[in-house]
Amino acid sequence: MAVLLATKGHAQAAWRDALLACDPGLDIRLWPDAGDPAAIEAVVMWGTHDLADLARYPALRLVVSMGAGVDHLLRPPGTPKGVPVARLKDVLLTSAMSEWVLLNVLRFHRQDPAYRAQQAAAIWHELPAPATAARRIGVLGLGELGQDAAGKLAALGFPVAGWSRLPKTIPGIACHHGAEGFDAILRQSDMLVCLLPLTPETRGILDAGAFARMPRGAFLLNAARGGHVVQPDLLAALDSGHLAGAALDVTDPEPLPPDHPLWRHPGIVLTPHAASITIPASVAPQVVDNLRRAREGQPLLNLVDFSRGY
Amino acid sequence: MAVLLATKGHAQAAWRDALLACDPGLDIRLWPDAGDPAAIEAVVMWGTHDLADLARYPALRLVVSMGAGVDHLLRPPGTPKGVPVARLKDVLLTSAMSEWVLLNVLRFHRQDPAYRAQQAAAIWHELPAPATAARRIGVLGLGELGQDAAGKLAALGFPVAGWSRLPKTIPGIACHHGAEGFDAILRQSDMLVCLLPLTPETRGILDAGAFARMPRGAFLLNAARGGHVVQPDLLAALDSGHLAGAALDVTDPEPLPPDHPLWRHPGIVLTPHAASITIPASVAPQVVDNLRRAREGQPLLNLVDFSRGY
Repeated sequence: MAVLLATKGHAQAAWRDALLACDPGLDIRLWPDAGDPAAIEAVVMWGTHDLADLARYPALRLVVSMGAGVDHLLRPPGTPKGVPVARLKDVLLTSAMSEWVLLNVLRFHRQDPAYRAQQAAAIWHELPAPATAARRIGVLGLGELGQDAAGKLAALGFPVAGWSRLPKTIPGIACHHGAEGFDAILRQSDMLVCLLPLTPETRGILDAGAFARMPRGAFLLNAARGGHVVQPDLLAALDSGHLAGAALDVTDPEPLPPDHPLWRHPGIVLTPHAASITIPASVAPQVVDNLRRAREGQPLLNLVDFSRGY
Repeated sequence: MAVLLATKGHAQAAWRDALLACDPGLDIRLWPDAGDPAAIEAVVMWGTHDLADLARYPALRLVVSMGAGVDHLLRPPGTPKGVPVARLKDVLLTSAMSEWVLLNVLRFHRQDPAYRAQQAAAIWHELPAPATAARRIGVLGLGELGQDAAGKLAALGFPVAGWSRLPKTIPGIACHHGAEGFDAILRQSDMLVCLLPLTPETRGILDAGAFARMPRGAFLLNAARGGHVVQPDLLAALDSGHLAGAALDVTDPEPLPPDHPLWRHPGIVLTPHAASITIPASVAPQVVDNLRRAREGQPLLNLVDFSRGY
């Protein structure tokens, strides 16, 4: 089974080495050097790879996304019909995302931006400290990432609620779902953490109407996709003072152009889509396992459900 | 039993209300209005209160510190001989301290200072991400505060070691003690978190010799007392690049004078002794319980051991 690695130059070697460490017999090709297109049976790819390229491989029977999100792979023209797409579920991807969430929740909870400004002005002044038990956190999306972040926030003493498309039950987390549940979680979230998949239903879900239903002085954290947030609405909500701050790991577009207002808004903390980075050595075993399953005709793991979009 | 609250003006009312909520029968005096000095049997005080004042109360039989640290109360002239001193152990004090530790560990671990600088320059660039499992954290002090912080760091996947005066055993934490153990933890800590009591043995313990034994590129976090750190040595270690950064909640002196170099060093993140703030309503039950025990001649709780200094 020939496997094509369709990723950026500097990551290719790490992916190849990690996959070969799991299965030294793999025939790995590094894009664009695919060799005979008819030999390619699996493509392991970033969302940035040109989807039209996939049509070149007539024997393709598995596409593996190199990340947890697969919205890029579902855009037109999409992946070839009938070819299953697998995404990654990885404990390191998940724990890295939770680190980003905890860092930014604690940053705002502990008034760190104000303390940084005080340090710059050499001002020694203790600020009133809101109680952890009174800081209600809402987590949008209760998949691998959302559940892990919610649990770690609850373990620190924050009251945590979650929201998902379908009903879920998670010990210690107040779970909401559907349209009514979305209204409920917005109204009670002093900090709202978006870890949703990007689908037609969730695109633009965080807009002026959503922000207006959040408590005055609330914070937004988005580490999912830039497309979840209507960015002009976010800027307006920050400018009006209705929202107190936002931490964004994702924007639209990416990279963010140097003259974009998100860079310079004093209420916004930006990271460059770095909250959770796939580590090839950590995910290689599940990729190799799926390659083996494809070869042997066994059920594949972590398949994308095209009907729900993730 | 008349109780004197010896604290700053704005905190007096909150303390009085919290204590009265637990025991409405308490006879509470607000310093400096002590009334008849001979009626005062207990003083509840901050470390900033003048210790010489305590000699004015001949019937004094309990001193309660309003914080976890009691080094201020042990300075000359000390508290009156034979009068027991209690300190606070409080779940909110502890969890607030762990929040500060997690915020600053994650700040450095996730290269947040570099990302803040990139945002200021509108630079979208993902930095190499060190693995959590490879970031060794050492916690100095394994009392209430140290154990809680160590446990929460370990739960995030960091390898955590701890150091204390006497041997301890804590599941999931590699425990060291004594002089040999101090050397061991310094040499293996990529981040060193100081949560020690300040005693003659620990004053100045973090000096040039200690920093030299830490790995190059390590970080220091101090939320204990300014006196633990030899500040010129810290500045030198940061300037040489041997240490990569420091987060300090405590300094010597406090408040830090506006022209002090700690304010402006690019490797230092400062908070104004705000990591953990006593919430009167949370600690009032244990204070009232100790007042009742003193009145009834029962054993007191959380007493300071003058021989060990905390």
